[in-house]
Amino acid sequence: DVIPRNLPNDHISHYDLNKLASTPMAAYNQERVLILSPMSRFYDEYWANLLKLTYPRELIELGFIVPRTADGDVALKKLEKAVKLVQSPRNSKEAKFAKITILRQDNESLQSQKEKDRHALSVQKERRANMALARNSLLFTTIGPYTSWVLWLDADIVETPNTLIQDLAGHDKPVISANCYQRYFDDEKKEDSIRPYDFNNWVESDEGLRIASTMSDDDIIVEGYHDIATYRPLMAHFYDPNGDVNTEMQLDGVGGAAVMVKADVHRDGAMFPSFPFYHLIETEGFAKMAKRLGYEVFGLPNYLVFHFNE
Amino acid sequence: DVIPRNLPNDHISHYDLNKLASTPMAAYNQERVLILSPMSRFYDEYWANLLKLTYPRELIELGFIVPRTADGDVALKKLEKAVKLVQSPRNSKEAKFAKITILRQDNESLQSQKEKDRHALSVQKERRANMALARNSLLFTTIGPYTSWVLWLDADIVETPNTLIQDLAGHDKPVISANCYQRYFDDEKKEDSIRPYDFNNWVESDEGLRIASTMSDDDIIVEGYHDIATYRPLMAHFYDPNGDVNTEMQLDGVGGAAVMVKADVHRDGAMFPSFPFYHLIETEGFAKMAKRLGYEVFGLPNYLVFHFNE
Ligand SMILES: Nc1nc2c(ncn2[C@@H]2O[C@H](COP(=O)(O)OP(=O)(O)O)[C@@H](O)[C@H]2O)c(=O)[nH]1
Ligand SMILES: Nc1nc2c(ncn2[C@@H]2O[C@H](COP(=O)(O)OP(=O)(O)O)[C@@H](O)[C@H]2O)c(=O)[nH]1
Ligand SMILES: [Mn+2]
Ligand SMILES: [Mn+2]
Repeated sequence: DVIPRNLPNDHISHYDLNKLASTPMAAYNQERVLILSPMSRFYDEYWANLLKLTYPRELIELGFIVPRTADGDVALKKLEKAVKLVQSPRNSKEAKFAKITILRQDNESLQSQKEKDRHALSVQKERRANMALARNSLLFTTIGPYTSWVLWLDADIVETPNTLIQDLAGHDKPVISANCYQRYFDDEKKEDSIRPYDFNNWVESDEGLRIASTMSDDDIIVEGYHDIATYRPLMAHFYDPNGDVNTEMQLDGVGGAAVMVKADVHRDGAMFPSFPFYHLIETEGFAKMAKRLGYEVFGLPNYLVFHFNE
Repeated sequence: DVIPRNLPNDHISHYDLNKLASTPMAAYNQERVLILSPMSRFYDEYWANLLKLTYPRELIELGFIVPRTADGDVALKKLEKAVKLVQSPRNSKEAKFAKITILRQDNESLQSQKEKDRHALSVQKERRANMALARNSLLFTTIGPYTSWVLWLDADIVETPNTLIQDLAGHDKPVISANCYQRYFDDEKKEDSIRPYDFNNWVESDEGLRIASTMSDDDIIVEGYHDIATYRPLMAHFYDPNGDVNTEMQLDGVGGAAVMVKADVHRDGAMFPSFPFYHLIETEGFAKMAKRLGYEVFGLPNYLVFHFNE
């Protein structure tokens, strides 16, 4: 038993981390999953998709972090409304999530960073560093001693298989990332189509390593932008509509769209560096950190989740 | 208000990180302090000292992580007994700590690391890496969205000023470390005396940087051992019995004896690297990471805490 003696009256909790497992039979073993979503906008489709997930809701905790912007204000209002509805005391235990935490983002530390590095940092680097700080605040304050899995799910992912949690856990990998695509209307062919969206899931290349070796400590490589040609194989391009949906590939960088992480990886210290870590930051730096901690990182090129299209 | 709308019935919690402060007037402002102690042995003197701290107990949470060893079994039993006594339902709210979490350490990830790196790692490196993993597990699972300060206090620190928390918080620094000494009987002078104990509080030196620059990615420098002469100024040697107890000095490495950290530093991502980070690991690597996150690290050379002497 993971929580052998929880004595709320005395405010003492005992946890045995050795008995806490993250297994391919997560639901059967009643493993707790923490879904974390940084959220600058609230999309009804994201919420509807979340409610359609078939993993037992009483084993799911949700964590959100909302920026202190006008967009964030609107998102927070919508999120609160949606949350109140599903967590209504009139709903059964099975219909409710185990716990929901909503954080309002602190922007002071970024401000100070901004001041310091304004000249050195490109806008992209600043944005990614900000996202890293938000992810870390969310992670550090919501992961519990009883958490088995952490699912990072961006708030603009509007469509996934209903069995997302079981599917990703089933691969039994320390870190595993879905392939993030986007639906769009192909104007030429006059038909609905899909296209790759997230280019942060990649395999390191010799050229990527060579470029990194010439860089100074504070430089970063951000994948998916064309100013630096790393020739890294991008998982987005490995999608095969006729291939096995369970095909796995080893990755060196991941994006944040839909990534399942065994909680022990985070508990060992894997976080989202806001500073260049091997010239990588945020989710890409997280993948590198997981690897430095001795864990393997995987992706599922044929397992698609879909990003909102505005 | 930091916890504006805590709706336990609906399992929804809102937290505004911007309203969460870590100020020099911590007790007056009712700031929550999390005291974290990795514990391989339970010392009555450590516990007695903890109970003598004058910071309001209802604002203090405690977190322990106990290794899965024979020593750990004994420590756990003693700790549980001590905890039950102070948290007794018959005690007033003021006499009890706000929350106590006891973790039993997971040793699987270290095992796997051990297997992999057995040849490369010296015993010291393995021990420090293990400690880093233990500290991270403890940190990630106990820090809450309402935590203002984290006090790292080793379980073999048997004597501190009663005002330890107020004193360290009063300096209003992101990270501040006390000077860790040890009482002993001077056989020559036939009198009680004190001597430096923890050499992990240090200032980087040109020679330290030079040595690091010649090292491979996986090499580490561990301060306080004489196989590598870094000529780093060690805070342990800056103690002046006649000096101002409030004297501050900037540090580049810290030990874990008694270190106060503003919770935002951890929330931004500062953890204890178990892998070489700028050739540093554990508490020394943590100091470097805090600096990479833009925070300053300080020590108090004339403010002593005392390590157990067996
Ligand atoms: N907390 C927080 N979330 C943000 C911020 N900016 C974007 N997000 C969210 O973080 C996720 C990824 O950001 P997004 O801008 O969509 O990145 P992209 O899709 O990779 O271009 C989405 O869930 C956003 O809603 C921010 O400043 N703070
Ligand atoms: N959880 C855990 N704590 C440990 C372990 N080894 C030592 N400790 C604790 O960690 C702190 C520092 O360890 P210690 O061996 O005293 O280091 P030193 O004083 O720097 O030589 C003390 O509070 C110990 O009780 C371990 O394997 N696991
Ligand atoms: Mn997006
Ligand atoms: Mn010690």
